[in-house]
Parts: sequence; C-alpha cells; structure tokens
Amino acid sequence: MRNLDAHEDYRVDSHKLARQLSSLPGDFPKPKVDYPGPYGVIGYGEAWWPAQLAELWTGRLISEGGTQFVLQGGLDLGAAAGAAAAAKAGGARVVRVGFGDEVEVAIEPHPLSPYRYLRFLQEATGEARSGRQVDSALEKLTAELAPETPSEDNPAKIMAWNLLERLPVWVVSERYAGLAAALQQTFARIGKSLSITPPPGGLEFFVTALEARHEQGDPLVALVAGDDERTRLAVEVLQGRVDTVLQLPKPDAAGALSEMVAIWYFVAWTAYYLAILYGRDPSDGEVLARLREEA
Amino acid sequence: MRNLDAHEDYRVDSHKLARQLSSLPGDFPKPKVDYPGPYGVIGYGEAWWPAQLAELWTGRLISEGGTQFVLQGGLDLGAAAGAAAAAKAGGARVVRVGFGDEVEVAIEPHPLSPYRYLRFLQEATGEARSGRQVDSALEKLTAELAPETPSEDNPAKIMAWNLLERLPVWVVSERYAGLAAALQQTFARIGKSLSITPPPGGLEFFVTALEARHEQGDPLVALVAGDDERTRLAVEVLQGRVDTVLQLPKPDAAGALSEMVAIWYFVAWTAYYLAILYGRDPSDGEVLARLREEA
Repeated sequence: MRNLDAHEDYRVDSHKLARQLSSLPGDFPKPKVDYPGPYGVIGYGEAWWPAQLAELWTGRLISEGGTQFVLQGGLDLGAAAGAAAAAKAGGARVVRVGFGDEVEVAIEPHPLSPYRYLRFLQEATGEARSGRQVDSALEKLTAELAPETPSEDNPAKIMAWNLLERLPVWVVSERYAGLAAALQQTFARIGKSLSITPPPGGLEFFVTALEARHEQGDPLVALVAGDDERTRLAVEVLQGRVDTVLQLPKPDAAGALSEMVAIWYFVAWTAYYLAILYGRDPSDGEVLARLREEA
Repeated sequence: MRNLDAHEDYRVDSHKLARQLSSLPGDFPKPKVDYPGPYGVIGYGEAWWPAQLAELWTGRLISEGGTQFVLQGGLDLGAAAGAAAAAKAGGARVVRVGFGDEVEVAIEPHPLSPYRYLRFLQEATGEARSGRQVDSALEKLTAELAPETPSEDNPAKIMAWNLLERLPVWVVSERYAGLAAALQQTFARIGKSLSITPPPGGLEFFVTALEARHEQGDPLVALVAGDDERTRLAVEVLQGRVDTVLQLPKPDAAGALSEMVAIWYFVAWTAYYLAILYGRDPSDGEVLARLREEA
C-alpha cells in the first residue's frame, strides 16, 4: 500500500507537479500593455472554463470594438483562428492568449492553466482587485495541502484516500455554475480518473439514475460543493443511493469566483494525491502532446 | 434472460410508456392565442433543455416587451416565480408553461416532456415549419422502434442489448451543443441508469480520465452522435480505452434541431428497452412525485 507521507512514493511525479501546485498563486503572465475595453473573452480547448468565468464580469463572449481575448487552449481544429478573424473584422483589437499560432501572451498547455488564463484576464481587464482575492483564497490553502503536511492534518490527502477506487459524482451549488465540469476535467487530467457531472435537472437525475444500478460498478461517492437548499436536497436524495457523501471544504474566500477557484484548487490537490496512490504521473504533458500531434 | 420480443416482459411498463413514445409526434399542447414577439424563453427543472433549444431561434433568455415564456419544469425552489415577476416588471407578457403555480399552458412532469415544451414553443413563436420538420423526423422512426418490431429489425432494441451492464459515455458533435446532457437525463429517467457526459474540453478528458481505470468498474461504452472531425478524433482516442464504441444512427432530419430531437427520441426508446431488460418500470412519475413533495 502506498504512503502519502513517504518521500519515495512521490517519484512518479516526474514533472514536479506538487511544486507547481504549491507555487501556483501568483504564477501567471502579467499584462505588459493596456487593453482598451469593452472586453470579450472566448475560449477553446483547455481554456473553456476561464472564458466562462470571465463572462461573469465581462458579460460577453464577443466584443465589438475594445479588446477581444481569444484563449487558445488547443485542439480547436481552427475555431480559435476563425473567432480571431471575426473579432478583427468587427473592429476589436484581438489578443490571442495560450499556445499555438500567433500567440501574443503565452500560456503552456497544463492541467493548472485555467488559473493562469483567469488571472491574466483579471489583470488585463481592470479586475486586479478580484484577482488578489483569488490569490488570497489559494494562499490560505498552499501550506495545508502540500505533501510536507502529514495525512492527519492534510484534508486533500484524506479526501484522496476516500476517493480511491470510487467513482465521484459532483454535486455543485447553483452559485458555482460551470464548476462541476471544471472539476471533472481537472480530476481526469491530474488524477487520471473518471467522474460524473449531472445534467441541469440534477435532482431528477439523482433519483432515477441509480435505480437499475447493478452491483459490479465502482462504488459511487457524492462530492458536494456548497450548501444551499438545492445541494442539501440532493444530499438527502443521494444518501442511501451512493456509497458515501462527502462535503468539499467550504473555502475561506471573498465572493463566488474566488470560492470556485479555491474549490478547484482543493480538487486539483486531491487529484494529485489520488494519482500518487494509483502510482500514476500526475502530469499529462506527454500524453496530450501526442494527441495534439494527431489532431 | 428477458426477451424484448415477448409480450409478458413488458408488464413492468405499468404506465404504458411505449404507447406514449409511439404516439409522441404531434402530442403537445397547441397554442390557443397569439403571442406577440420578441420572445424570451427561460426554463427550470426538467424543462431546461427545451429552453436551451429555443435559444437557438429566439436568441435570448429574457424578453423585454413581447412574450416571456417561463417553463416550469419543477424543483426550481421558487426561481421560476422570480423570473416571471422580473419579466413582468420588464414589460413582457408572461406565459407560464409546465406544472405548478399559475400555469397557463399545462405540461405534466414526464420523461418525454422536453418534446412537448419544444413543440409548443415552436408553434407559439412562429416556428411551426421547423416544428413540422421535428415531427417528420420522429415519425420516420416510430414504427421501426416500437415493441412490435422484432429485435433483428429494431435498432433501439439492439442498442439496449449493447448497453446492458455497461456505462455509456456520450460523445456528441459540437453541432449538437447541449444534447449530451439531455441524453444523460433521459437515459436516467427512463433507463434508470447512469451515464457520463464529458466536460467541454472533451478530447483531453478522454485521453486522461481512463488511465488509472481500475478494472472493477462496469465496462464503458462510447455512444457517438454525429461524425465531424472532432467526434472522429474522439473515437480514435477512445478505441482501445473503452469496451466498445457505438455510433447512434444518423437521423433522417432537416437541420440540427430536428437531428437533435431525433437522436434524443432514439435514445429514449433505447432507454425504454434497457428498463425492460432490467425489469424496471420505464416511467418515473411516482418516484419523482415523492421528491417534489419533499422539495
């Protein structure tokens, strides 16, 4: 059995993802010029979530005039280039962020890149204050969640043990719209494992989807973010239908955006420890580079 | 072993869902008055998908002036009433559709209700022609997919056998945005079974999420809708990673909207036969009525 407090079990982390997780707050490209508003943000590939988050404050995908940020998260099969051309024709200054063709602000493909896109966008669009709130929420977690903190004091290590050989189902408050899919993505890319996001009518789904459940499957675990009326009702429904219901820690953060990023960061650490428990490299650069060559 | 061509195995269908599936095309409430444009459509609970589909032609959730349709699909914890009040204050005529408080156009809670909401909306907003295209696409399928058609000629029965004790993963072309979650919902409500929708960055997910896959789980089956470049790439990635890749039949339908509803209808029939194979009632009225009382 692997030991999350033993140095040698971290050898599979050959690209030092733990170090990158620990130093994530503040690790993003800083804007070097001023970008005129209004702002539009559209994202592809791994950058879909930061684009969705940016819509919370820009209110738009496409900007007419002002600045259009096109987040090139890869595997877009030409769509990013098309969006950039359309925005240019609409009179916007186009700023391509990410990797690949004609990138002005480089962000390497990486399971932690959503943070980097988001923080760049915040600084570039006059949202630096809200950006500092995000960083402050993450900084409160870095020491507690790092490998040096022993299992009994490290909630991400404890959560990873709880998820071992289980199939998570994300139960996310409406306050955190879009977060479930972001957690599913990061849990896959770092933890190398499947998880399930419910459809929008989540409660009906939870009641019906487990009725014909045959017993060969991995035991399900409900992972709950938020505690509004709807998530409490979902937990009531799921208790008895799944193996365990676990609440993700309530983030010490200012506002829904910071809370979402803090929950995501906690799940990234949890997925990291799960990869260690499975003896898998928690990074994914090599396997995804092969995919990008094929695409 | 159950037999999809034996009458007695259909006894679990105590609410005659097969009959409702067969007679679905045309089975929706017809508008009795004219509704002035512009139109906004917002949907809750089980009506989330028809609201999303309506956005394809109305282009908006909220209408200022004109008519605001509020689809009351249940379990909204007061949100539908709030949206109705806000739209009224904005000067729109508010039409509440669905079930519950102050409903003007009644649509009962039902796993097939997305079709009924959609077709009512099409007739009510000047889209009757596109509505006839939807019905025409479904009518081409009703005889072929009905219980009277023996297994060897019935692709929904064959598909149900293929899904038995497997966990489907939906792989859906970008042409059909939002469809994967609708299929997941209907597969749960009728087939009483879990399935997995990928996050927006689907390709990275397919490559990474199965790496640590431990062998106790149900075998995965990829269910593919559409055949653009992205779905073909996904199939390439998934072959060898999942137990089987199955293509959903290409619908004989005019336009993306009709194609989506036809694929949904095929999956509803497949889920129906899966429920029969599991010996479960393919309807869900009773279990969801209990949930609504609790909420």
